[in-house]
Amino acid sequence: MKLYTTKLAPNPRRVAWFVAEKGIDDLETVEVNLLAGEHKQPEFRNKFGLGHLPALELDDGTCFTETVAIARYLETVYPEPNLMGVDPKETAIIEMWTRRAELYLANPMMMFVRMTHPALSALEAPVPEVGAYNKAAAEKFMKALNRHLADNEYLAGRFSMADIVGVCGVDFGRLVKYRPPEEYEHLNRWLAACNARPAASAGLK
Amino acid sequence: MKLYTTKLAPNPRRVAWFVAEKGIDDLETVEVNLLAGEHKQPEFRNKFGLGHLPALELDDGTCFTETVAIARYLETVYPEPNLMGVDPKETAIIEMWTRRAELYLANPMMMFVRMTHPALSALEAPVPEVGAYNKAAAEKFMKALNRHLADNEYLAGRFSMADIVGVCGVDFGRLVKYRPPEEYEHLNRWLAACNARPAASAGLK
Repeated sequence: MKLYTTKLAPNPRRVAWFVAEKGIDDLETVEVNLLAGEHKQPEFRNKFGLGHLPALELDDGTCFTETVAIARYLETVYPEPNLMGVDPKETAIIEMWTRRAELYLANPMMMFVRMTHPALSALEAPVPEVGAYNKAAAEKFMKALNRHLADNEYLAGRFSMADIVGVCGVDFGRLVKYRPPEEYEHLNRWLAACNARPAASAGLK
Repeated sequence: MKLYTTKLAPNPRRVAWFVAEKGIDDLETVEVNLLAGEHKQPEFRNKFGLGHLPALELDDGTCFTETVAIARYLETVYPEPNLMGVDPKETAIIEMWTRRAELYLANPMMMFVRMTHPALSALEAPVPEVGAYNKAAAEKFMKALNRHLADNEYLAGRFSMADIVGVCGVDFGRLVKYRPPEEYEHLNRWLAACNARPAASAGLK
């Protein structure tokens, strides 16, 4: 099994963190040069269908992308510690929070950063209205999340994939020196607690 | 178990179609009046955390939202016919295509429609640039999908949740009389084949 990945990007960080939480140390990793566009080359695209990272290649040649699909597959190979649910009910709760963290927080943050960071304008012409819309959407969800975290230590009852996706999403804003509003004290407490975990720095250095 | 849902909306349609494919006929369904804003009332929000549909309430009082989490839970209760994968490898492939169909096609289509349909401007002030950006993003992915569907009957090898999510995403464009470009013949063949399934009309009438 081979994991194609890169440093410093938010989606690869999710899987790197997930792998580090599980203490997996026998997974072959191929570092892809994002700035050189290695993931956009025909060889990579033909293998994975799209030029996306991270990507996983199984020993039988099966190839796939998408962080949560990769994480769910890895969880079947390396079940402990469990990060995606021990029974159908907990799996549903963690999947719900993983999706909320991604759809309403991480993805809008990514669009906001993409439309704001000068270096990223080389990849795509920035549309300021799209950046502003997504920043507002992310902050609207942060408000709801702050309320949830007032009574909950983590998103889905205990530390899980949902927290990894949410924290990686917010942290990506650092690229444009973004920090969540200070008044969201429960959100900021949660971010600090998750980032204090030894596995949180995987994929960052 | 109770499914809170509504007619004619794209996310509720996903779960209605999934339920119909499985021939589930003993699931209690509560019709929520979207136009009257019933899902935004405190009672609903307190139960599910967010005012989103569809939503599932289990007999023990556990409540959750998010279509794919609801579908994965229902698949454990009603395993046949399988729509989300029979082993870890197929589950990963179907989850990858479900995510691609959602993140790069259904979600941009939803944003495009929201920013374009006159009646929806009552819910949110439309930002034309956001509509145009998302329409272009959806069509960019349709091009990639059209290539994939030239050699594949369905997204993930056989009919699955991924097709349901993709077709519901594209079809939502009908609200603003949108049709995918005719030149994407494989994409259009796939849309017609999926929509010809008896279960496809669930949630539409």
